[in-house]
Amino acid sequence: MASASVIPAERLKAFIAAAFEAVDIPADDADTIANLMTGIDLRGLDGHGIFRLPPTIERIKAGGINLRPNIKIARETESTALIDGDNAVGHLTVNKAVQVAMDKAEQCGVAWAGTTNNNHAGAASIYAMMPLQRDMIGIYMAVGSANHLPPWGGIDMLLSTNPIACAIPGLEEPPIVMDMATTVASYGKVKMAADRGETMPEGWMIDAEGKPLTDPTRMNDGFLVPIGGYKGYGLALIIGLLAGTLNGAAMGEDVVDFNADFKSLTNTGQLIIAFDIKAFADVETFKRNVDIVIRSMQGSATLPGFDQVMVPGQQSHEKSERFTRDGIPVAAPLMARLDTLAAELKIEPLI
Amino acid sequence: MASASVIPAERLKAFIAAAFEAVDIPADDADTIANLMTGIDLRGLDGHGIFRLPPTIERIKAGGINLRPNIKIARETESTALIDGDNAVGHLTVNKAVQVAMDKAEQCGVAWAGTTNNNHAGAASIYAMMPLQRDMIGIYMAVGSANHLPPWGGIDMLLSTNPIACAIPGLEEPPIVMDMATTVASYGKVKMAADRGETMPEGWMIDAEGKPLTDPTRMNDGFLVPIGGYKGYGLALIIGLLAGTLNGAAMGEDVVDFNADFKSLTNTGQLIIAFDIKAFADVETFKRNVDIVIRSMQGSATLPGFDQVMVPGQQSHEKSERFTRDGIPVAAPLMARLDTLAAELKIEPLI
Repeated sequence: MASASVIPAERLKAFIAAAFEAVDIPADDADTIANLMTGIDLRGLDGHGIFRLPPTIERIKAGGINLRPNIKIARETESTALIDGDNAVGHLTVNKAVQVAMDKAEQCGVAWAGTTNNNHAGAASIYAMMPLQRDMIGIYMAVGSANHLPPWGGIDMLLSTNPIACAIPGLEEPPIVMDMATTVASYGKVKMAADRGETMPEGWMIDAEGKPLTDPTRMNDGFLVPIGGYKGYGLALIIGLLAGTLNGAAMGEDVVDFNADFKSLTNTGQLIIAFDIKAFADVETFKRNVDIVIRSMQGSATLPGFDQVMVPGQQSHEKSERFTRDGIPVAAPLMARLDTLAAELKIEPLI
Repeated sequence: MASASVIPAERLKAFIAAAFEAVDIPADDADTIANLMTGIDLRGLDGHGIFRLPPTIERIKAGGINLRPNIKIARETESTALIDGDNAVGHLTVNKAVQVAMDKAEQCGVAWAGTTNNNHAGAASIYAMMPLQRDMIGIYMAVGSANHLPPWGGIDMLLSTNPIACAIPGLEEPPIVMDMATTVASYGKVKMAADRGETMPEGWMIDAEGKPLTDPTRMNDGFLVPIGGYKGYGLALIIGLLAGTLNGAAMGEDVVDFNADFKSLTNTGQLIIAFDIKAFADVETFKRNVDIVIRSMQGSATLPGFDQVMVPGQQSHEKSERFTRDGIPVAAPLMARLDTLAAELKIEPLI
């Protein structure tokens, strides 16, 4: 990374909360969002944390978000709930959905909560990890907030990078936390590459002729490539139907590009599944068996060019420990935007 | 395809049922398995249908399968069930698991059933599609029955191609049915290529040096490549933990290679999630919205080299209509094995 400042997590969180309070978000809600955004940056998912603060504030200023939402259960059964976000900042609605899903899973075994009338909520894994605190497994899916992916063989950008995340606890080992876009690279990664003046590897994007596109400043001339070709397209489509269409939320051509339009309702949909481990197994035995799997993967001999085998979430866990101790790196171009934001909102700058 | 016979579905089914009855599977069970295997072939998933009959019979003859299993619910909550297969032919246990999941979802909204002490059950999509009959969405995952995939960056084959399938109904359009291995190609496809004397494309397998392996007769010298590199590894690992470890079924180094060892308990695990659409939405409205998404994908302009855009399951649906009408193609090498099998079991040959 080029020049970066390193900010203590508590300071980052206080800055985010102050920014939201400055645009009239109630203090409790501002604190919830700040906590989640900081949690995202702590895991090194830097396209979805404070990186998203300036555009979120811009959306609020444009009147695109409801500052006093009535987030409520619109429909429910014993093991399902549809949460109407009332156009809240997305983090608040998903946070509520996860709580509802966990409460229902506690009663039922497994529960599934979807969101409708919501907005972008940041990184998937933050929500998938919440059930871990209650010895539950979390699975999260979302409709991405801009379409950069055509169906396989097509060139009309009808799909987003629709991510999926899953968190499974170990006993002595950190949890396995998978968090992946269904494209080879997320659009956030492309924007970060542009921000840093880097070239993209071949395979991230192609142009309308199907040729590799490696200059991230030309991102509008091409589209993202799905993992495994038609397979990643299939995953993105299914996730969009489950997290979007099923919730009565936007999917396909209805998706509003949140980087281009700051005013229209995005009607973003997400879903969380919480699974109570004790419904199936003795919790400690299960966690111990997960440890065995983790250690056997890490113990594999390596291919030429690799010096270790990791499990999903391992890098983020290591970053989380380092960033909690040493602070969170904020790249210079983002820091400049945050300074501008602080001046506009008349809040104390980050540093 | 090289030389192939074309067999009416009813004849194929009767042959499979006769083969299972000849090795002392009760007629009802034989009929259930034959029905599912034929359904797999009807959708053109030809590595998992009658292709698996000779090795399944071989496993039965070796004493590796329980012919009089007591398939039962070992553990349950309102929305979950763990089904103990008692080492049955895998199709029977998963069939039961899907029925239990659908019944619970009818009551609760969503339900999750896992299997333990089970065997290979054929193609994933057959089970994911069952809930469609009750206006439910099906999601299925399984631990594959042989390890051909190392963790990303490793060379120890600790994972299988662990598949995931999902079926979502349309109104006038056929359902969307995704059914994918988490590797670029399934091992079944590799074996079919070897059977047909074909070369594999680069990207399906690599050798222990990380170099492309394209001769399918050398399949034992290499391993499958996961979709999207570390992402496909992550998916395979998560699916294995959910469908295997969580069920107390085999995962990782415990997985028995069902093509090499016909006697050891495989303890194969699968899971099915059934989601009752009416818990979230008016069923007809939802299906109509799925149609809109399907048609918008199919209506996309195409990349050079593609003449149409399809949705997942579309090819299998087209095959299903054609094979139901015209019969199911059976390649000559497989037909030879089925003739040998018929002679051994003293049943009427397929043709």
